Amino acid sequence: MADWQKIIGGITAPRGYQAAGITAGLKPSGLPDLALIFSEVEAIAAGVFTTSQVKAACVEYCRQRLQAKHSARAILCNAGQANAATGTQGYLDTLESAMAVAQALNISSESVLLASTGVIGQRIKMDALRSGIPKVVAALSETGSDAAAGAIITTDLVTKSIALETTIGDASGGLRQRPVRIGGIAKGSGMIHPNMATMLAFVTCDAVVSPHLWQQMLARAADRSFNSITVDGDTSTNDSLIALANGQSRTPAIIEWGAEAEKLEGMLTAVCQHLAKAIARDGEGATCLIEVEVTGAHDELSARQIAKTIAGSSLVKSAIFGHDPNWGRIAAAAGRAGVPFEQENLQIKLGNFLMLENGQPLQFDRAAASAYLKKVAVDSSLPKDFIATNNSNDLSFDRSTIKAQRVDNPVIIAVSVGTGHGAGKAWGCDLSYDYVRINAEYTT
Amino acid sequence: MADWQKIIGGITAPRGYQAAGITAGLKPSGLPDLALIFSEVEAIAAGVFTTSQVKAACVEYCRQRLQAKHSARAILCNAGQANAATGTQGYLDTLESAMAVAQALNISSESVLLASTGVIGQRIKMDALRSGIPKVVAALSETGSDAAAGAIITTDLVTKSIALETTIGDASGGLRQRPVRIGGIAKGSGMIHPNMATMLAFVTCDAVVSPHLWQQMLARAADRSFNSITVDGDTSTNDSLIALANGQSRTPAIIEWGAEAEKLEGMLTAVCQHLAKAIARDGEGATCLIEVEVTGAHDELSARQIAKTIAGSSLVKSAIFGHDPNWGRIAAAAGRAGVPFEQENLQIKLGNFLMLENGQPLQFDRAAASAYLKKVAVDSSLPKDFIATNNSNDLSFDRSTIKAQRVDNPVIIAVSVGTGHGAGKAWGCDLSYDYVRINAEYTT
Repeated sequence: MADWQKIIGGITAPRGYQAAGITAGLKPSGLPDLALIFSEVEAIAAGVFTTSQVKAACVEYCRQRLQAKHSARAILCNAGQANAATGTQGYLDTLESAMAVAQALNISSESVLLASTGVIGQRIKMDALRSGIPKVVAALSETGSDAAAGAIITTDLVTKSIALETTIGDASGGLRQRPVRIGGIAKGSGMIHPNMATMLAFVTCDAVVSPHLWQQMLARAADRSFNSITVDGDTSTNDSLIALANGQSRTPAIIEWGAEAEKLEGMLTAVCQHLAKAIARDGEGATCLIEVEVTGAHDELSARQIAKTIAGSSLVKSAIFGHDPNWGRIAAAAGRAGVPFEQENLQIKLGNFLMLENGQPLQFDRAAASAYLKKVAVDSSLPKDFIATNNSNDLSFDRSTIKAQRVDNPVIIAVSVGTGHGAGKAWGCDLSYDYVRINAEYTT
Repeated sequence: MADWQKIIGGITAPRGYQAAGITAGLKPSGLPDLALIFSEVEAIAAGVFTTSQVKAACVEYCRQRLQAKHSARAILCNAGQANAATGTQGYLDTLESAMAVAQALNISSESVLLASTGVIGQRIKMDALRSGIPKVVAALSETGSDAAAGAIITTDLVTKSIALETTIGDASGGLRQRPVRIGGIAKGSGMIHPNMATMLAFVTCDAVVSPHLWQQMLARAADRSFNSITVDGDTSTNDSLIALANGQSRTPAIIEWGAEAEKLEGMLTAVCQHLAKAIARDGEGATCLIEVEVTGAHDELSARQIAKTIAGSSLVKSAIFGHDPNWGRIAAAAGRAGVPFEQENLQIKLGNFLMLENGQPLQFDRAAASAYLKKVAVDSSLPKDFIATNNSNDLSFDRSTIKAQRVDNPVIIAVSVGTGHGAGKAWGCDLSYDYVRINAEYTT
């Protein structure tokens, strides 16, 4: 039983936030491509960024900003050009962008964070950005979450958004319990257009929390969500997760570890996991979400590493696409994860079908196991005409259909590697013809 | 200029070896499925095996054998069943197989090594194996290399074989220079049938060399060849590289490091690299071989790690399949390889096209770069009717056409990451629709 509930409103569900998404002319398609998230007061800010040695200019910029100051008021995100591998000029473009946002919002440029997604090696179209910034500021609204979520996607089939609410404050101690909310939006589906990269996620929260705790919570939540998904194994130059906490819930301040901090971290992790699963489910060409749970490992990290290796195996992914209950590939992927275990202890379950126990293969109903995979793919599929309309990178679809996406019905792979207490999950998607078609399409 | 030359004869080119390949009835297709390699005298034996935690019974068996004794006379290899994840009974099957081979050859069972490839989770069909062993022993011949090479493949499109010759012995020192030969055969192309796994390579040599040096040479050669290729990133439960050196060249013994040892290791590395490239070129669905050379790294290991990450990137692979000179993906893959470097130093070249220098993107002729990729794919392709006949797992083709395979015309990606002296190469193949088709095919 979770301590929180789903609410509507996305990143503008928490108090004191506004958001907007507009068309600035950065994408050739003419679709929305510039998003702004704004906190009415200076907010605690934490970030987790790509570990790639090749970092986009905006990533370098945000890291420096957040090192100098653990707070911010605005996040500007453009889609269309990644501004990665763009050399010195690319960095100058980020500085100019931040100053333009600060000027339009009448805040300090030190309170502006930036994110970009799009073609690696291309600078942002600065003329379009310069004229777009006043427009996106003018469009800010307390119901702007969906517009922002729609403006940060590139060739994602659906937008990704969620908001959760819990209460903070000890009722028994006489303090009034008040709601705390966390909202999040994200984008990412591997790379659909050649060069279209990047996982981006923005989280807003109205809790009162110390910068140090907030950064720790975010790093752990990222490990248990975004760092546990894999679409094609390619870490982007632009991957960014930024989380603001502006204190507008006016709940008691969370400044040390305890029940309230755990509750807040739990809800933050749930937001991140929802967004991460939505990204995996929207992997290019995917027909289903795959959830791998590993138990019995020495620790959580080992368990997650095995889970992620299985979820990322091309052979496991293509077997699931073909509805083939091929447990040998799951065993092989577990074995090469780099985590020691005794193969005599290995146990593999696909859905409800136990296939390997104590390292010994079991008889199971192959036809029924295949039917299970087929059923998940059908149950979790997007409406056919939705796919047909949108798979060709023509993203002019009705975004009201986005609720059709299901992340609550994955293919479940459960693996046990021993008697340890370490457990961890990872998520991925199957590998289909469309993955190759989408990524091989010659567009230069 | 290499110190050696190509000769014919494969693994039976070195003196004192015989080989055979027959149909024992292990493969449902009725194609050859049992190979035997035999040294007329006890040979020094070295091995490199899968690092997977889930190891086939034959891998466990060989590791134990080679730990106890660094020599062998026979290698039996079956195709059809991998004998991996088969529990206790699988291990008993390997013991029985070794004893049957020893009996038929009238040698000690401690001199028998074993390898298997095929479906994970399936035991070897022991009845067929028992009756096959005397037949494969009877078929041994000094020209049996091609038969053995044909019996170890599963759904490879072509067999992989090579032999090289050099001279050992210091002419100036009065000793007569004599030829030393190394031959090798290999199999592997990812997994074509679901569960069909494994990279196997067997090397024969007639040099006189100490067991310790031979194992060191083999480990290094494996790192520079088989451990530097990637088809789909899935390490098999059965991967095995076994190298025999039987001393029948009667050349001076190589017992310490020096010019002769270096020459022998160089030739061993060349044999392994040829076989490794042939495996990468034969990756499922591949239309071309990709060679990535990284220079300017701190050391060879770092360089190879970056090269392997680029060669293994699904996004780079699918771009090359689409003839898209997409250097941004190469930069992104280099960046996530886990090796620190300054992105200001990054340089990327595709064929003769310089695309990024000192971290700054350059103008280049995209159409010409795309034409380069197209030309390599055409030049290195197998004859059309050859592909059409053999792509459907119906491998009843004329093996005389196998010489058609080209490994000397790869797509060349050259990356420099700094001013260090570390350089390394890796090989892979492109990612095509056929990879998914082949691996998703539902056959259970």
